Amino acid sequence: MSDVNVSYKTIDSLLKPATVAILGASANKNKLGYLQVKALLDGGFQGDIYPINPKTKEIEGLQCYESLAQVPKKVDLAIFCVSASNAESCLVDCAENNVKAVILFASGYSETGEEGMKKQKRLEKIAKDHGIRMLGPNCVGLVNTTNGLVSTFSPGLTALPLNDKREVGFITQSGAFGVLTYIAAAQVGLTFNYFVSVGNEAEIKFSDLIEYMIHDPQTSIISGYLEGEKEPERLKKLAKTALEKNKPIVIMKSGRSKAGSRAAVSHTGSLAGSDRIYDDFFKQTGIVRADDYEDIISFSKLHLSGKIPTGRNTVIVTSSGGRGINEADRCESYGLNIINLNEDTQAAVSKRIPSFGSAANPIDLTAAAAVTNPELFIEPLKDLVNDPEVDNIIFTEFPMEWDADSSYLQEFIQICKNSDKFIFITTFPLEGMAIPRGTEELEKNGIPVITGDLNPIRSLAKLVAYGEKYRKTVTKSPTQTSEEWKKKDISHLLSPGVTLSESQASVVLENYDIKTAKKAVANLEAEAVQSAKEIGYPVVLKIDSSDIPHKTEANAVKLNVNSEVEVAEAFHEIMENAANYNPNAKLNGVSVQQMLPEGVEVICGISNDPVFGPVVMFGLGGVFVEIFEDISFRVAPITKEDALDMIKEIKGYKVLQGARGKAAVDIDAIADVLLGISALATDYENEIKELDINPLILYENGAVAADAMIVVNELKTQPVIGG
Amino acid sequence: MSDVNVSYKTIDSLLKPATVAILGASANKNKLGYLQVKALLDGGFQGDIYPINPKTKEIEGLQCYESLAQVPKKVDLAIFCVSASNAESCLVDCAENNVKAVILFASGYSETGEEGMKKQKRLEKIAKDHGIRMLGPNCVGLVNTTNGLVSTFSPGLTALPLNDKREVGFITQSGAFGVLTYIAAAQVGLTFNYFVSVGNEAEIKFSDLIEYMIHDPQTSIISGYLEGEKEPERLKKLAKTALEKNKPIVIMKSGRSKAGSRAAVSHTGSLAGSDRIYDDFFKQTGIVRADDYEDIISFSKLHLSGKIPTGRNTVIVTSSGGRGINEADRCESYGLNIINLNEDTQAAVSKRIPSFGSAANPIDLTAAAAVTNPELFIEPLKDLVNDPEVDNIIFTEFPMEWDADSSYLQEFIQICKNSDKFIFITTFPLEGMAIPRGTEELEKNGIPVITGDLNPIRSLAKLVAYGEKYRKTVTKSPTQTSEEWKKKDISHLLSPGVTLSESQASVVLENYDIKTAKKAVANLEAEAVQSAKEIGYPVVLKIDSSDIPHKTEANAVKLNVNSEVEVAEAFHEIMENAANYNPNAKLNGVSVQQMLPEGVEVICGISNDPVFGPVVMFGLGGVFVEIFEDISFRVAPITKEDALDMIKEIKGYKVLQGARGKAAVDIDAIADVLLGISALATDYENEIKELDINPLILYENGAVAADAMIVVNELKTQPVIGG
Repeated sequence: MSDVNVSYKTIDSLLKPATVAILGASANKNKLGYLQVKALLDGGFQGDIYPINPKTKEIEGLQCYESLAQVPKKVDLAIFCVSASNAESCLVDCAENNVKAVILFASGYSETGEEGMKKQKRLEKIAKDHGIRMLGPNCVGLVNTTNGLVSTFSPGLTALPLNDKREVGFITQSGAFGVLTYIAAAQVGLTFNYFVSVGNEAEIKFSDLIEYMIHDPQTSIISGYLEGEKEPERLKKLAKTALEKNKPIVIMKSGRSKAGSRAAVSHTGSLAGSDRIYDDFFKQTGIVRADDYEDIISFSKLHLSGKIPTGRNTVIVTSSGGRGINEADRCESYGLNIINLNEDTQAAVSKRIPSFGSAANPIDLTAAAAVTNPELFIEPLKDLVNDPEVDNIIFTEFPMEWDADSSYLQEFIQICKNSDKFIFITTFPLEGMAIPRGTEELEKNGIPVITGDLNPIRSLAKLVAYGEKYRKTVTKSPTQTSEEWKKKDISHLLSPGVTLSESQASVVLENYDIKTAKKAVANLEAEAVQSAKEIGYPVVLKIDSSDIPHKTEANAVKLNVNSEVEVAEAFHEIMENAANYNPNAKLNGVSVQQMLPEGVEVICGISNDPVFGPVVMFGLGGVFVEIFEDISFRVAPITKEDALDMIKEIKGYKVLQGARGKAAVDIDAIADVLLGISALATDYENEIKELDINPLILYENGAVAADAMIVVNELKTQPVIGG
Repeated sequence: MSDVNVSYKTIDSLLKPATVAILGASANKNKLGYLQVKALLDGGFQGDIYPINPKTKEIEGLQCYESLAQVPKKVDLAIFCVSASNAESCLVDCAENNVKAVILFASGYSETGEEGMKKQKRLEKIAKDHGIRMLGPNCVGLVNTTNGLVSTFSPGLTALPLNDKREVGFITQSGAFGVLTYIAAAQVGLTFNYFVSVGNEAEIKFSDLIEYMIHDPQTSIISGYLEGEKEPERLKKLAKTALEKNKPIVIMKSGRSKAGSRAAVSHTGSLAGSDRIYDDFFKQTGIVRADDYEDIISFSKLHLSGKIPTGRNTVIVTSSGGRGINEADRCESYGLNIINLNEDTQAAVSKRIPSFGSAANPIDLTAAAAVTNPELFIEPLKDLVNDPEVDNIIFTEFPMEWDADSSYLQEFIQICKNSDKFIFITTFPLEGMAIPRGTEELEKNGIPVITGDLNPIRSLAKLVAYGEKYRKTVTKSPTQTSEEWKKKDISHLLSPGVTLSESQASVVLENYDIKTAKKAVANLEAEAVQSAKEIGYPVVLKIDSSDIPHKTEANAVKLNVNSEVEVAEAFHEIMENAANYNPNAKLNGVSVQQMLPEGVEVICGISNDPVFGPVVMFGLGGVFVEIFEDISFRVAPITKEDALDMIKEIKGYKVLQGARGKAAVDIDAIADVLLGISALATDYENEIKELDINPLILYENGAVAADAMIVVNELKTQPVIGG
């Protein structure tokens, strides 16, 4: 975990230095030390550049210095164009000369194994001891396109055309993939303001840069490529701040597959957290998960329009029936609604378009619009902007010839600007035939133009979801969070390494306001009979022992016990079977329990993820979880809103709403149970290894834990990450 | 349905005419009649061209004729550059002059409503009466790139660079989308041999062209864009022939979504068949479903390599760790296996690549391969081709500089050619930086190079599935088909409009070898008691009446009846309740049935799809079908292979295999039931509207229909399509 005392402001020295020294600068044009100097000059870096090399006088007209100590000004940033073997002494030199930040390209550290890790730890210690912000090692460096700081050896990052609008920052755990994304974005008019390759994250972490960009006025969107997050708890907090500021964090997290996740672990030394939990963590925090690099580009271009969609209702305007159908398919597959336009709007539109066109959604202007009458593209818009049911309008083609001076284009832009409808243009990605001449003018006025290969419709769906989360955040409707729960003292129950007996687990749950079946543990036949009487028939009898978690297997459960005689019989049979099953088991006695009425059965629980720590889980249980994987997760602690989201996002939610003629169950009661176990998991994070309520029985009113299992950690050690 | 007497060979006149007349040819350069003449000349058409126009002497150096009758040779193909109002008289003229084929571009027919439909029907009749093959109306025409026949007004289809290999035919129901696909394919080196826009399909149908291309020696792959198939039964047969010839049919079927399907119906007048059934029909027939136009291009390029993957085991070779992870994610998401390479292969590979690389899959050559040592790309291949566990090898980058003369490239090609491994290259789609110099040479030698935006990995997965289906077909392992079943005479049971009582439905099923619960219908108490005795206790009693399909609602079912007294009581109660529930119901009596032992419950049945006719359905039933939509379909008649595929492709198959400690059920018995209902549905296609076996109870040995419902069609009319 990074030192919280280090302010994000110190990253200024890395991204916005006034003075830069190049250690290992060279006049040899094949050397990194030359290329780096040249890159800064070509990039038009606005600060002072000090090449350092005791054997050289001058490089590309710049005076060369013998050492850092000789440099006339204080050095903000030192770029290491030196081998790994010299890096440590250079870093010491930087410390002695009060350098504020350094960039290390060199490989041969933690990515190579234990020896490399030791070397890296030494660098990290020197940097931290002297308050030096260190990027890398094993990275391709960074580019700040707003001040010409090109600090990289990657040829891909230099000599690219710069686009005017530069408000999207990009942070990457993979150098090569990051460079490809940077170029791809620039090729379609999206130049990142900052490109930062974090490499091994010895000192500066992925989250450090997110934090910096959240507070950076030059950044509107924070994007990144991630293989494994090292500080999830911090990222959760940062995501909240970013959401409140409407600065989306858009992250492509790779390693969805088993093989990909395996490779990611070896590639950047990330822990293999469950990708499924990443997915739900992103939903929980409002981080936009990019499925691929295209989403980073398309989402950014859509959000930079300055509008946020008001909902999912989408209308397509096309000049090709086939295109309209395909884009409608795409919209629905990503969860957007292609609405049936109401009669008034259809009637109005049909007056404006050719008779053989279609005023239904998709609106088909026919080939006439594409060939002879481009002005048709403006017509349906006049009615659509007045239809309150419409949120989004997608044009699948657009007149190619209209340039900034075209009165048609200006009319189109005016209508769009005066409307809160989210409007954009997407074209079929043909080389040389896809970019309308008016693109720059359109985009300047908040109407994105994105070719289909960048999948803007998928990104629109992501922006709609982002908008929903954002509005919930800014309206700040008060929501309960499990952090507000008062911690209950149950530590005496959580002995290291034990699996709690059901009666012990029930005590734990009851402490956290989770209802369990009425029960009492009996050591004698008479106690059992008395308890049954108090609880009321029918009852269930089960062995109560931490050492016998699989009670059915031990033949130590009797359901539907209906009389004193039956209780007495069952008591002895269970004690005997349990003793036979495991002669060494410590038997607490027989638990006599209320036989719960039938209800809908679900399961919920807590598990510990190697990346995220305690995670709350919810699902219908049985084959629904095991085979259909219909399950939802949230990282603890959760809010009531999170709990409700978890319940609603499983497919089986319809069962809870009362499928097949049954009444709906008490959704609120489930949410309270989830909040309860979240509070418990947070309070006893170091103790509780695993918790399962299976089943939780749901009724029209209330929910009762019918059985529960809690496993306590072996030793009260700190988990590797989280906490 | 098209006339089966018309041979596909007559399409030769359309695609390979020796003589072409242009009706409505013009010297006016703005007119279609001029553009069409010019297109044929520019296309280098190899036959004779006869412009027809009584008022013009010459167009672009070609002699103009007053009328068709004046043309010195027999005209094979006439292209109509005339308005819709003149089309009919022109067609009559063609008939009189023995023209063999015509192309009609004009709109204003069935797509505009009833009046247009009548006009179209008249054209169709004239064409059919005179054996004229007619393409259109309402189409953009066709292009045959192998003989220069450019018969279209679409500017997009002319003046495109022609690539050498032209073996992929393309048929489209959408003109505009088809043109876009044609251009997109040509831009990446895939020129279609034939492009045919079928328009309204008045005479020539989509399937006619598929049949033609199946038999055309110049076509290796048949691709298309489809909104609604008009002859599914014919397509099913054609698909079988195509599969046997290893000529894949690759179709992008649009209208997956509700809105898209709605629009497709109005766009091309297709029937709205369930898209889900299209999906399963394609699986059944081995037709490759393209998810988008990219799949048409990528699948074709992969198949043109001449190899078919031997399986799903895939290895990725990369020079960027990040790229490797992303492509591994992609492979797994499409169902390919990124295998763990065995120790021997890993050891061998690791000797050949840099020490800081990775010999695990994905194999990471590191940036060294991309920058300084491109020859590294050849190294792992030497070991991978010898590993029998490897089916496919994907390179995510490739040396850009190697041209055809490079000895490295030639070495790479030689290794690939001597191996049956499926090998291809996919690069990150950056403009100007994605196409290696050696691409042409690689592709000539069976190694496709496809940029990532065309999603070649998805297409590889489709090619693997195609290969599996193809191998099953060519090995011709004998499989039972429901067509071989002997038709049973049950017509007396199928009175128009009725819903069969359970006992009647049982008789029907028993006739088709489907076991049902032992049962007898009793009209008197004594009969009921006697039947119960014969069947054996416990029994179930239910009312038997076609007029009371919802027996539980009528309170006319008693389960678990255990004695003579109980039978007598239940008999009277049921008769009474039924009479009260529906005083007008005809009561056959009370059905006394065997109480079946517990087993795994599934459902199966028959429904009638507006496009495909009788369709067999299978699923786990209940919420699994209603909420999880875990259900499979096949168009009747089915084979045993189809039945087994249906059972295995539902997610819940794991339940049938014995999830949660239970024994596996009798899969073969389920398949036999599906074959039985398929035979029944085929034999009585006009009678049976709907059939549901719910539940079918499965055991370790056998399957029994516990309840069944059959609805008979109102009148014995022919269904709209199919049969």
